[in-house]
Amino acid sequence: MSLPFGFSDHPAQLLRVGPGFSLAEQPSKAAPGFSGKKLDGVDTLAARAPVLAQLQEQLFAESRFGGKKSLLLILQAMDTAGKGGVVGNVVGAVDPQGVKLTTFKAPTDEEKAHDFLWRVRPGAPGPGMFGVFDRSHYEDVLIHRVHGWADGAELERRYDAINAFEAELIDSGTTIVKVMLNISPAEQLKRLTARLHDPTKYWKYSPTDLDERKFWPEYMDAYQHAFEKTSSEGAPWYVVPADKKWYARMAVQEILINALGGLNLQWPAGDYDLAHERSRLQGA
Amino acid sequence: MSLPFGFSDHPAQLLRVGPGFSLAEQPSKAAPGFSGKKLDGVDTLAARAPVLAQLQEQLFAESRFGGKKSLLLILQAMDTAGKGGVVGNVVGAVDPQGVKLTTFKAPTDEEKAHDFLWRVRPGAPGPGMFGVFDRSHYEDVLIHRVHGWADGAELERRYDAINAFEAELIDSGTTIVKVMLNISPAEQLKRLTARLHDPTKYWKYSPTDLDERKFWPEYMDAYQHAFEKTSSEGAPWYVVPADKKWYARMAVQEILINALGGLNLQWPAGDYDLAHERSRLQGA
Repeated sequence: MSLPFGFSDHPAQLLRVGPGFSLAEQPSKAAPGFSGKKLDGVDTLAARAPVLAQLQEQLFAESRFGGKKSLLLILQAMDTAGKGGVVGNVVGAVDPQGVKLTTFKAPTDEEKAHDFLWRVRPGAPGPGMFGVFDRSHYEDVLIHRVHGWADGAELERRYDAINAFEAELIDSGTTIVKVMLNISPAEQLKRLTARLHDPTKYWKYSPTDLDERKFWPEYMDAYQHAFEKTSSEGAPWYVVPADKKWYARMAVQEILINALGGLNLQWPAGDYDLAHERSRLQGA
Repeated sequence: MSLPFGFSDHPAQLLRVGPGFSLAEQPSKAAPGFSGKKLDGVDTLAARAPVLAQLQEQLFAESRFGGKKSLLLILQAMDTAGKGGVVGNVVGAVDPQGVKLTTFKAPTDEEKAHDFLWRVRPGAPGPGMFGVFDRSHYEDVLIHRVHGWADGAELERRYDAINAFEAELIDSGTTIVKVMLNISPAEQLKRLTARLHDPTKYWKYSPTDLDERKFWPEYMDAYQHAFEKTSSEGAPWYVVPADKKWYARMAVQEILINALGGLNLQWPAGDYDLAHERSRLQGA
């Protein structure tokens, strides 16, 4: 794993959910593995953006010549944790042509009439694509668990279905990266308050944000269960401290660079006769 | 129309296709309305990116409270003209959450079995969205005209169908901006040659690029016809000189800023009781 200046350890190692993981013990305000300050982090994010962009372009390019690899970033978090900021500032730095973003809202009546994965499957990235889920099928084992909309047996069925679904994606060539942005209740309160005191942010606030906030411990419990049931070698969860937006963005960026970097991507040679095309060009 | 430093006239005025327009008389290497050099242009693009991003965010925010407005950028050009660069560098600067990009390739068998607009309609932006067509329904009156895949009567039918389709989008709240990136044959040759001498660009080259190049005059004739038949007050074409990539990107950016700027977008007030929510927050 190559690390940019300022890092002592790699976020992909430090933040990965492994055996015995306890969400309750994870920091939300720290910047694990990074010795710099906010401005250093902002600089690092900018400096590393072209690295991520080139890896994504190679992924995309390979698919034009038969490559089957793809990437799927799944983002989950409590409200205001910064999913949108990661999408805009980390994913936003790569070529939009290669990105397939799906935002999951409360399901429609038609979606509810199907099993919970029905609406998720079309969002899976095709060859060469960088898929992003802003919320995901994990809502069906998070908010549903918190509010008791699914009982214990049904939740077990869903964990199994999720693991089978993700295994299927992996088998078809998709690298899966699952990220939970971990903010503290205090930081959320600060951000919600900011939204209610800035006219350019009123639109981002919804009264239901405060309603869900009351279930914070239940949500943390649901996340802990989801991690235990669904974090695997092939589809690992990363819990990223997110009270510092600049750190969360940088950490997700490094986790993605690490994931793509492990695919041994190459610039494809092209499926034409290079010498012949060069000589054709000279007469064109 | 507000203009950033360096501009004497607005690209949205200078480059718009109006009565008596002649593509053959348009420059491809000039930088109309801009007195600066390349570095000035690059700086201007970066400086104006937040302006476009804010307008897009307002468009998106309005839709969350019932706003019906949307934006559709249609990009057409000869190969290598820089459509991808506009998508990456101009559109890429706004929040990916609000962008709906559709890339049109050669139609599949299923698509061919339907009328030419069938595959295009699902790409239309919903409320608040910034839709982008990388190639579009115009291929059906461009390449089809050039190769005689549609006869005169069929082409007339398609121009009419396109105008009816675009009028329908406008009626539903979509602002349409149609851009043709205008490069010279000499510049295209330079770019194709570059692709064949840089291993990181081999994948972008296809032998058919050279085949289509032979029909350059026929393509220009097809574009001229398309402009005459489909450039209107509500859905204008802009022909953007594109031999200088930095100018083309900047010009498209200003055309988009101008289009969104004319919509009188506002930050929505929110549909909740602000004072009540503020006091709820204090106890949360």
